[in-house]
Order: sequence, then C-alpha cells, then structure tokens
Amino acid sequence: MPRRAAALIIGNELLSGKVSDANLPVLARTLFELGIRLERAVMCRDEEVAIASELRLLCDRYDLVFTSGGIGPTHDDRTIQGVARAFGVALRRDPGLEARILAHYGPRTTEGHLRMAEIPEGSRLIESEELAWPVLQVGNVYVLPGVPEFFARKLKAIRHLIGMERPYLSAAVETRCDEGEIAALLERIEREHGVEVGSYPRFVDGKMQLRLTLDSQDPEQVEKALEALLRGLNPAMVLGVERPKALDQKKAKT
Amino acid sequence: MPRRAAALIIGNELLSGKVSDANLPVLARTLFELGIRLERAVMCRDEEVAIASELRLLCDRYDLVFTSGGIGPTHDDRTIQGVARAFGVALRRDPGLEARILAHYGPRTTEGHLRMAEIPEGSRLIESEELAWPVLQVGNVYVLPGVPEFFARKLKAIRHLIGMERPYLSAAVETRCDEGEIAALLERIEREHGVEVGSYPRFVDGKMQLRLTLDSQDPEQVEKALEALLRGLNPAMVLGVERPKALDQKKAKT
Repeated sequence: MPRRAAALIIGNELLSGKVSDANLPVLARTLFELGIRLERAVMCRDEEVAIASELRLLCDRYDLVFTSGGIGPTHDDRTIQGVARAFGVALRRDPGLEARILAHYGPRTTEGHLRMAEIPEGSRLIESEELAWPVLQVGNVYVLPGVPEFFARKLKAIRHLIGMERPYLSAAVETRCDEGEIAALLERIEREHGVEVGSYPRFVDGKMQLRLTLDSQDPEQVEKALEALLRGLNPAMVLGVERPKALDQKKAKT
Repeated sequence: MPRRAAALIIGNELLSGKVSDANLPVLARTLFELGIRLERAVMCRDEEVAIASELRLLCDRYDLVFTSGGIGPTHDDRTIQGVARAFGVALRRDPGLEARILAHYGPRTTEGHLRMAEIPEGSRLIESEELAWPVLQVGNVYVLPGVPEFFARKLKAIRHLIGMERPYLSAAVETRCDEGEIAALLERIEREHGVEVGSYPRFVDGKMQLRLTLDSQDPEQVEKALEALLRGLNPAMVLGVERPKALDQKKAKT
C-alpha cells in the first residue's frame, strides 16, 4: 500500500479569491512522482483554532501532512500557533533561529521578526544547503511557506526525506470522443487492468476535447491498459497518445 | 453576521496534480462580492463514501455549500451518488432530464448518458435561460460541474438565488515594505478599525513586493483603515493604492 498524504492550505486570501493557490498542484505532482497518494486537501482561514482542529484530524488519519502558508511575521500568520495547539505543546524561542534573525536584520529587528524564531516544543528543524531558512517538521507534519517560490524550493529540499515508493505512472490519450459513448469502455479498462482511469472533458481553442488518463504504480499495467484503450477507441477520434517516461525508456530498450 | 459557505472540490486529477483547480478562485471571488464568507474548502477524490462524509459535515456546519466536479457520465463521476448518500436519500431517474438526453443524443444514447438523468430524491432542478442543463440543488448544496467554463456559467446563472448581503470591499496597498517591520502597524490597524488586514509577500519581476489588503463590509471602515495605514507607512515604500469601486464612487460624489 502506498503511503497516504494530506495537505492543509492556509490563508484568508485564498478563500476571498484575492490569490489563487499555486502550491497544491506542485505538492500533488511531487507526491505522485514519489508514489505517495494525496488523499485530501483542506483550505482554511488564518485562525489558530481552525488550523489546529483541521491538522489534528489530518495528522491522525494520514501518514504525511504538508501545510502551506501562514508562517510569516505578521499577526495574520497563525500556522505555527495552530501546529503547536494541534500537538498540545508550547512554543519556545529557538536560540539558533533568533541569532540568525538578529544577524540578518540587525538594529531593524522587530518583535514581528523574532516571532519567526518561535517553534513548537519537540519540533525538528531541517537544514539544507539550498535553503536560507530551515523547514519545520512536527511529528508527521511538514510546515511549508505560502509564497510559491519558497514553497517549491523547500519542498524540493525535503523531497529526499519524504522517501520514494514505487512512483505513479500516467499515460494519457487526447481524444474528441463523447464521454458518455465510451463510459462503458472506460469502466471495463479500469476493472480489467487495475489502473485508475480518468476522463477529463475540457475546452481547447473553443472545442471540447476529452483527455483520458491511466494511472498505476505498475508500468506493465499502464502499458496493457493503454493498448486495450486504444483498441477500444475509434482511431479517427484520437488526437494524441502520451506514454509515461518509464514506459518510453522500456520501449527503447526492447 | 454574514452567511458562511464552504466548498467541496472533487476530482482525483486535482490530487494527482494533472489538473490545477480553476473553480475555487471563481467561487471565492463571487461569494466575496455577495458578502458571503467562504470559510473552508475541501478537495477530495472521486469516491462516493469520501464525498458523502465530507458533504455531511459541510452541510451541517455552513449555510451554503458548493460542489465542483464529478457529475459527468463516466464511472469516475461519483458526486451525485455521494450527495444522495450524504442526505440519506435514493436516486431516481428524472423523466424530464431523461427526455432531454434522448432528444440530444438520439440513437447514440448510452447508459452512461442516462446516468446524468439520475438525481437524489427531493432535489431541485434550477433552470435558467442561459443554461442548456439545469443546476442541481439538494438542501443547502449547489452541485456544479468541474469543467471551468461550465462551472463559471452555472455559478453566474444561480448568483441571484444565492442572494446578496452587504458585499465585502477590499482596498489594497502595494509596497516594498519588509513585513516584519510593519507587523505592529498592521495589527494595530486591524484592532482599531475592525477591518481584516492581509499581508502578502510575493515576487514581482524577481523582486519581493508586499501587498497589504483591508477588507470589510463597511465602506467607512475600509476608508478610515486605508487612511490610517497610509499615514503609518513610509511613502517611499508605497508603489500603489487600490481603492474598492464603492469607495471610488463615493469619492466621486463628494
């Protein structure tokens, strides 16, 4: 069984529509590549109690939890407090972080800046050469920033710690099929080949296209399902086929 | 008190990173304009039990719930089943919808197509001149499609039914301030003026900018908070000010 993960995306700005979240897709793709199943994502406001109660549930139910947002120096950054409350621990000022803040801001240092040195008791600071500031880990929770550039950089830096199971592979077939007409075929492919079949209608240049995807951790399964799918579709409706990289490499060898 | 809303965004493709959700930002902006507070969004997989249990919680806790995705004709579209299970009711085939499907697809009609005529007992079909297909409402839940163009069109068509409270207004100041240096100022503005103050660092052309926002349903509050904020900031660090439209109109009149 692949490990199961969840995400908590934190920020009033996302729920008022001022900002569109850019971090969940990055996390989702990374976990897919690592063979970890992202089961659920929750978006909540910058409120300590809400963050804590969401997190408590996610930590209990999932192997890995990732948070995004709410770790800056201002009053609306409540994530660290929420994490501490979820784990029932106090905050302490970390002397190492405090020294780094003082070294960086010098005489301009404010209480706001120093708040960023406060971390929950029993948490771990993950340092990395590529990072100016460590990643906080508390239990099975990785606490990541909301700014997309920082989120992506930090996720990349901790990727090797999350570990690698069998990666998920995905093949895709781009078509002009009508979804309803091939519904029975898709259900059969999923049942017979043990792959997860997805069917995604969308507009491309004003015309409806249907993208079909086949996912599995087993490259053989994906390949066989892809062959069966292509046999079942009207070739005149197929616009393109995308094989996962691992399949291409395998093909190249044989 | 403004009414409180939640969203359930449904789709494996979002949690595997194949597709980035585009519907939540549209919903969030719409509710903000209508003066309804979007409190929470959950993203889950295309699984009937997961959809039903998420929805049960959301329906009980929030005044309005909106779902996105999973209402097509294929086996991975489980939203309608999930909604029925959440409300503990059976599905029935609606004769009107069935007739429309048969008229549209004619001899090409499949069981997949006809699945789209199945709706939970006791649900309401909202018709609109702009829509080819009605919106399903079950209790306090509006069931919307995942395809972004259809989601936006349907949300627009039911907007007048959701109703209008006092709209939220938002002013914004774009700055080059350091977040930590003005943290105390921001906290004071929020406390003294009763507005929600947001502080959003982000990269613009490779340089860090800090966007400050002031939200309230009371135009006077926003205006006073904006004046106080601008008095408190170093003018050399201010790049731009955006007043909400309602404030601009008021200014123009006086």
